Amino acid sequence: MMKKNFYSDNVSGASPEILAALVVANAGDTAPYGGDPYTERLPRRFGQLFETEVEVYPVGTGTAANGLCAAVMTAPYGAVICADGSHLHTSECGGAEFWSGGGARSVPLPTRDGKIRAVDLTRALADGALRTADVPPRALSLTQGTEAGTVYSVGEVGALAEVARAHGLRVHMDGARFANAVARLGCTPAELTWKAGVDILSFGATKNGALCAEAVVFFNRELAQTMRYRRRRGGHLFSKMRLISAQLEAYVADDLWLRNARHANAMARRLREGLSRIPGVRFHHPTEINFLLATLPAPVWEGLVADGYSFSRRGVPADNIVRIACACDTTEQAVDALVAAAERHAAVKSPNPQPTPAAR
Amino acid sequence: MMKKNFYSDNVSGASPEILAALVVANAGDTAPYGGDPYTERLPRRFGQLFETEVEVYPVGTGTAANGLCAAVMTAPYGAVICADGSHLHTSECGGAEFWSGGGARSVPLPTRDGKIRAVDLTRALADGALRTADVPPRALSLTQGTEAGTVYSVGEVGALAEVARAHGLRVHMDGARFANAVARLGCTPAELTWKAGVDILSFGATKNGALCAEAVVFFNRELAQTMRYRRRRGGHLFSKMRLISAQLEAYVADDLWLRNARHANAMARRLREGLSRIPGVRFHHPTEINFLLATLPAPVWEGLVADGYSFSRRGVPADNIVRIACACDTTEQAVDALVAAAERHAAVKSPNPQPTPAAR
Amino acid sequence: MMKKNFYSDNVSGASPEILAALVVANAGDTAPYGGDPYTERLPRRFGQLFETEVEVYPVGTGTAANGLCAAVMTAPYGAVICADGSHLHTSECGGAEFWSGGGARSVPLPTRDGKIRAVDLTRALADGALRTADVPPRALSLTQGTEAGTVYSVGEVGALAEVARAHGLRVHMDGARFANAVARLGCTPAELTWKAGVDILSFGATKNGALCAEAVVFFNRELAQTMRYRRRRGGHLFSKMRLISAQLEAYVADDLWLRNARHANAMARRLREGLSRIPGVRFHHPTEINFLLATLPAPVWEGLVADGYSFSRRGVPADNIVRIACACDTTEQAVDALVAAAERHAAVKSPNPQPTPAAR
Amino acid sequence: MMKKNFYSDNVSGASPEILAALVVANAGDTAPYGGDPYTERLPRRFGQLFETEVEVYPVGTGTAANGLCAAVMTAPYGAVICADGSHLHTSECGGAEFWSGGGARSVPLPTRDGKIRAVDLTRALADGALRTADVPPRALSLTQGTEAGTVYSVGEVGALAEVARAHGLRVHMDGARFANAVARLGCTPAELTWKAGVDILSFGATKNGALCAEAVVFFNRELAQTMRYRRRRGGHLFSKMRLISAQLEAYVADDLWLRNARHANAMARRLREGLSRIPGVRFHHPTEINFLLATLPAPVWEGLVADGYSFSRRGVPADNIVRIACACDTTEQAVDALVAAAERHAAVKSPNPQPTPAAR
Repeated sequence: MMKKNFYSDNVSGASPEILAALVVANAGDTAPYGGDPYTERLPRRFGQLFETEVEVYPVGTGTAANGLCAAVMTAPYGAVICADGSHLHTSECGGAEFWSGGGARSVPLPTRDGKIRAVDLTRALADGALRTADVPPRALSLTQGTEAGTVYSVGEVGALAEVARAHGLRVHMDGARFANAVARLGCTPAELTWKAGVDILSFGATKNGALCAEAVVFFNRELAQTMRYRRRRGGHLFSKMRLISAQLEAYVADDLWLRNARHANAMARRLREGLSRIPGVRFHHPTEINFLLATLPAPVWEGLVADGYSFSRRGVPADNIVRIACACDTTEQAVDALVAAAERHAAVKSPNPQPTPAAR
Repeated sequence: MMKKNFYSDNVSGASPEILAALVVANAGDTAPYGGDPYTERLPRRFGQLFETEVEVYPVGTGTAANGLCAAVMTAPYGAVICADGSHLHTSECGGAEFWSGGGARSVPLPTRDGKIRAVDLTRALADGALRTADVPPRALSLTQGTEAGTVYSVGEVGALAEVARAHGLRVHMDGARFANAVARLGCTPAELTWKAGVDILSFGATKNGALCAEAVVFFNRELAQTMRYRRRRGGHLFSKMRLISAQLEAYVADDLWLRNARHANAMARRLREGLSRIPGVRFHHPTEINFLLATLPAPVWEGLVADGYSFSRRGVPADNIVRIACACDTTEQAVDALVAAAERHAAVKSPNPQPTPAAR
Repeated sequence: MMKKNFYSDNVSGASPEILAALVVANAGDTAPYGGDPYTERLPRRFGQLFETEVEVYPVGTGTAANGLCAAVMTAPYGAVICADGSHLHTSECGGAEFWSGGGARSVPLPTRDGKIRAVDLTRALADGALRTADVPPRALSLTQGTEAGTVYSVGEVGALAEVARAHGLRVHMDGARFANAVARLGCTPAELTWKAGVDILSFGATKNGALCAEAVVFFNRELAQTMRYRRRRGGHLFSKMRLISAQLEAYVADDLWLRNARHANAMARRLREGLSRIPGVRFHHPTEINFLLATLPAPVWEGLVADGYSFSRRGVPADNIVRIACACDTTEQAVDALVAAAERHAAVKSPNPQPTPAAR
Repeated sequence: MMKKNFYSDNVSGASPEILAALVVANAGDTAPYGGDPYTERLPRRFGQLFETEVEVYPVGTGTAANGLCAAVMTAPYGAVICADGSHLHTSECGGAEFWSGGGARSVPLPTRDGKIRAVDLTRALADGALRTADVPPRALSLTQGTEAGTVYSVGEVGALAEVARAHGLRVHMDGARFANAVARLGCTPAELTWKAGVDILSFGATKNGALCAEAVVFFNRELAQTMRYRRRRGGHLFSKMRLISAQLEAYVADDLWLRNARHANAMARRLREGLSRIPGVRFHHPTEINFLLATLPAPVWEGLVADGYSFSRRGVPADNIVRIACACDTTEQAVDALVAAAERHAAVKSPNPQPTPAAR
C-alpha cells in the first residue's frame, strides 16, 4: 500500500534486518539487566564504529537519553545551552529539569536554519549575557541533524565545541538523526563527534530502522560514573536488555544504518525537487537530511489532506509550516505519488487563494 | 538445551505468541506516540479484563511504572508505605524520591512472609508511629505476588486497602507478578484490584512472557490527570508504542498470561517438592507463585554452581538464601534435572559441612 | 557619616521603629514556630491592609518567597512566565526549578522599561509560541516595582492578569519593592493586587526598613494548602518567628512602610534631577521608584569610585549601566553630595573621553 | 514573670548580649549578601574556636543547615544514615530529599538512649543490610546532643566516624544543641568535631541565646564547593546578613555560648533532681543536656497543665512522654516552682489513678 503517512520518520516499523535480529535474540535464556552477550558486545562494536574506547548505555527513548545527558553534564547544577527549537527544550516536558532533580535548566539560543552559530554562542558566553549570578552554563547541546532539517558540518561542530570548552562547558550531541547527518556529510562517526570535541552522544536508531533502540555513548568516560544508577532510577534499565542491544548491533552492522539514512535523505531530496516545481510552495531551510519544512498553497494542503496524506505542523499555526518526513522505507513511488497529487491539487483553482489554513 | 538459568524469571525471551504479535505489528505505518490502533484498543481490552473502565499507559519497565505511581499518588508530597523488602524501596534507586522530584519518600514496614499485615499498618497509621510532623503518609503500595514468593489473598488486600482508605491513603499494587498471583488465587483481576480497593496497578508482563511490556492501569482515573506529561517527561512515551501495546494485547488474549503464570507457578511447586526431599534444604516462606527462597547445604550449592546453574542471592550474604525462579518456559525436564543434580550433590560427602558459602 | 554606598537598598540597617519593635518582641517567652502573638496577629493586620481576608506566611528572604510561590502556582509542573530580567529568572539560581523539585521552569518574556506588555503576553500565550508540547504555562509573575525602576500601573496589572486568567494562569506579584510601587502610584494595596487579579504576593520589607522580613501573602487561599509543609521543608519556618512577625507588624503600622518608600522614591527623583544636568549622563528608563539606571561618562564614574562611592552594575559590562539605589535612610545631603561630586568629576577634562570602563 | 513555658528551648528571646550586638550591628551601611565585616570575620572567629581553618555559612534555620549538609554530602545521590528519632528524619518534612532534588534519602537506624551505636552502624554497613542495589549510603548524621537528651562522648563520635569513613561515608554533626554537648563533656569544640572525624557541622545558636542564627561549618572544605549556590537557591543568602553574623559573633565571644549552655544544662539537672523525688515519675534516658524526657503521673500532668505549664509531647501519644526543656534564661526559681507545683499535684489523690492522658 502506498505510503501516505509522512507525519514523522517514526511511523514505520523496524527494518527487516532488525526485526530478524530481534527474533534471533529472543531465543533462549540470557542474564538479565544487561548481562547478556548482545549488550556486552556493544562497547566493542561501538568502539569500532567510533574508532575509540566508549561506554554505551542502551535506553528506551531519545528523551531519556537527552535527559540523562543533561543531568550528568550539569551535576550538581547548571544550564544546558541549546537551540531554541531543540527537542530537549521544547518537546521533553522539562526533561533537563526533571532528570537533574531541579538542578539543571535548558537555556535556548536563537538559530539560523536550525543551527546555533559559533559567534552567537561566543557572545552569549563571553559577555555575560548568560548571567553568572544565575544558573551557570555547564553544557552545550547540539541537535545533529537539526530540527530544521539541516546538518552542522564537522567544522561547525568543532568551532562550537571549541567555544564551549574554552568556557568549561561539556558538549552533548542529540543524535536522534545522527545517521542522517553522517550520511549527508560523508564523514566518519568519529570525525563528527569526539574528534570534533563532543563528550557524549544520544545515539538514535528508532527513527532510522529500529523498533525501539537508543543509546547514550560516552566518549568522555568520566561523565559516565553515575550513569548506571541514574539509568536504573529512571526506569531505563531493561531487564531483557538484549531486546535493545540486538537492535543496536544489527543497526550498525554492515552499514545498515547508513544505507537506511542515505535512502531516507535521498527521498527527501527527491520530494523537494518535485515540490519545488509547484508554484507557491516555499521551503524554509536547506533540506539536508530526511525531511523538509515547507509552506504549501492552500489548495495543495487541503487536497493532500483530503487524499489521506499525513504531515506534522511545525512552529506556530500562523506560520503555516508543515514537515514532510521520509523514513528509511519510504519508496520512490510513494514520493512520486505525493508530488503528483500535489501537482494535481495545485492545478485546481481555489476560489479563495489563501495560505495553509491555521486549524488542523 | 536444558535450562540452567534460574536466576530470574527475566532470563527468557518472549513467548512465541507475543513474538509473533510483534512481527505482525511491525508491518506498515502507524501514527507514533501511541496514536496506533494497538494502543488505542488497550483501554477496551483492559476494561474487559478488569470489568470496569480503566486508563492504560504502556511504559518500558516496572521501575518506571512504580515510580510514576508513587509520584501521582503522593503529589505534591507524601510517603508511600511499602514492605521493607519491596522492589520500590530496595531496588529502584530511590525511585519514589526521583519520580516525585523529592516530594515523596518510601517508608518501609516489616512483613510476615513478605506481606504487610493489616494490624501492623493500622498501628503504624493510627498511633502516630508515622510522625505527622514529618512527611505525611499518602499511599500504600502492595507487591503482589510478594518478594517472598507469596500472595495476598483477596481478603487481605481488601483489609489493607480499608485501613489505608480510612486514613486517606491511596492504594497501589505493584503487579510485576500479578499474573502469578491471579493464577494462584483463581480469582478475577477485578476482585484482586479495584473491587478490593486498589487505585492503580503496575501491570507487569515482562516477567511472564513479554519481551518488554509494562503498563500503569488506573482504576481511579482522577489520578491519571498528569500521567501523560509525567510519562513523557520520564522518557517512557515510546514513539513506536505499538511495540509495547501489541505485546500487551497478545499477553492478555486467550488467557495467555494466565496459562504462562499457571505453568511457572506449577514448576516452582514441582521444584519445591523435589528439593524438599533433600536433607538440609530449608525453605523460608510458602511457595505460592513462580519462585522459591531456600537455603541449600553447601555441597548442593557448590555442586549446582559447578554444574553451571544460576540463581540469585536474596537478603544479606550471611543469610545464605537463594532464589530459584521458574519462568513461563521452564520445562518439567529442566526442573527434574535440577532436582536430580541437587540430589546428586547432596549425596556427596562434603569434607567441611558448611552452610552456603558467602561469597559469590 | 555621609552615605556613599548606593550599591543597593539592602545596604542599610533597619529603621529605628522596626529595631525598637524587635527589642520589645525579644522580651519574655512565646510559643515557637509561629505560635506567638505577633505571628498570630498578622492575618488580621494584613487583612486590614489589603482589605480582604488573607493568609500570611513570614519567610526569611524574597528568594524563598518567590520560589515557594512558583512551586505552589505550578504544582505539579508548569512554567512561570516572567520578565527576562526578573530576579526570579536571573538571580535566584533556578529557584523555580529548585523549589518545585524540577517541576517548574521560569520562562522569560522581553520587556519595555522592565515591564511585560499585555500584547506580548497575549501573543505568547495565544498563538502557541509557548509550545503546548512542552512545559505548559501555569503562572505569570510580575515584579512590582520592576528591575528597571518602573512600576506597572493598576490598569496594566489588571490587563496582564486578565490575559493570564483567560489562559488559566495564576498571577504572582514579586513585591520586593511593593512599598515603593504603592507609594509611587498612590493607590491602595488592594487595588494593586487582588482587585487587579493577583493571586499571591511576595511582600518585601527588607529593602525598605526591615532587618530581615518577607512574607508570602495569599489572596487566593486555595493556593496556600501546601504552604506550611513547603515552608518548613525549605527551612523557612523560623522557631523564633516573632523575630520576623514583629518586624512586619511594625513595618505596616502607622504607614511606616509608605513613609519609608516615599522618601526613598523622592531621593531617587532628586538624584535624577541632579545628575540629569550633567552632560553625557544617560538614563535608560523612567525613574519611578527608589533607584535609577544610568550610563555615566568615564570621568564621572572613575571619579566617584575613587571618592569611595559604591554602585552596582546592571546588564552586561559592555552596556556600562550602573544602578544607583536610594534607601529609606538616604538623606538629601547624601544625594546632593553625590550630585556635587559627579558634577565635579564631570568638569574635569578626561584625556580620553570614553564611556564607563568595562572592568570592575 | 515566672517562666512556665518549658515547651522548648526555642521559646525565649535572645540573650541580652546578643540583642545588644544586633542593635550595634544595625547601625550604618554595609555591603549586603555577606560582604559585611561581621560575616567576613566569621571564618577567623570560628577558626579560632575550632582550632583549624574552616568555612562558615550563616543560614536561617537548623532545618536549612541540615538539608544543605545532606545535599552536599550525598551529591549526586546517596543515603544519609541517621538516628530513627533524628530531626533530619522526622521533623524536616523530607529535607534530605528536598534539598538534594530527590537524590538523597534519610535512612534511620535504631538507637540506645538516642544514640546510634558503632556496632549497629558496622552491622548495617558491613553486612549489606543497607542494600547496595538501592540508594548507596554516602553519609552519617549524628545529632549532638541527641533528641533523647544525651550526648555522644568524644570517643563515641570517633568510633562512629571511623566506621563511617571506612565505608567511604562523610560525617555530619547536627549541632542544634552543640553548645550543650560541649558544656556537658568539657571537651574542646575541635575534639568533638573534626578531630573526631566530623566533616561538617550544623552549628546551632538559636536554641541557646540567639534570636535567629545558625551556620554550616565546613571542616572538610572540599564539600563547600557548591555551598554558595545551594544556599542562595534555597533562599538562605540573607541580604542583611550581618543580622545573623553579628549574633554568631556575639554568641561565641567570651564563652557566652558555653555559659548559656552550662546554665541550661544545670537547670535540667536541678529539675530532674526535684522531679525524681516524686513517686510515679519515670525518666526515659539520662539527662545530659538541657531537657529531660519523663512520664508523669496523671494528677501531676493534669495539675501542671491547669497551672498553665507548657511542655511538648514526644513519641506517640500512647507512650505518655513529655519533654521539659530548660533554656539559657530559665531561672532556678522557675525550676523550683515547677517542682513544687508537681509535688503539690502529686500529693493530691486522683480518684482515677491513670497515666498521662493521651489527648492534648
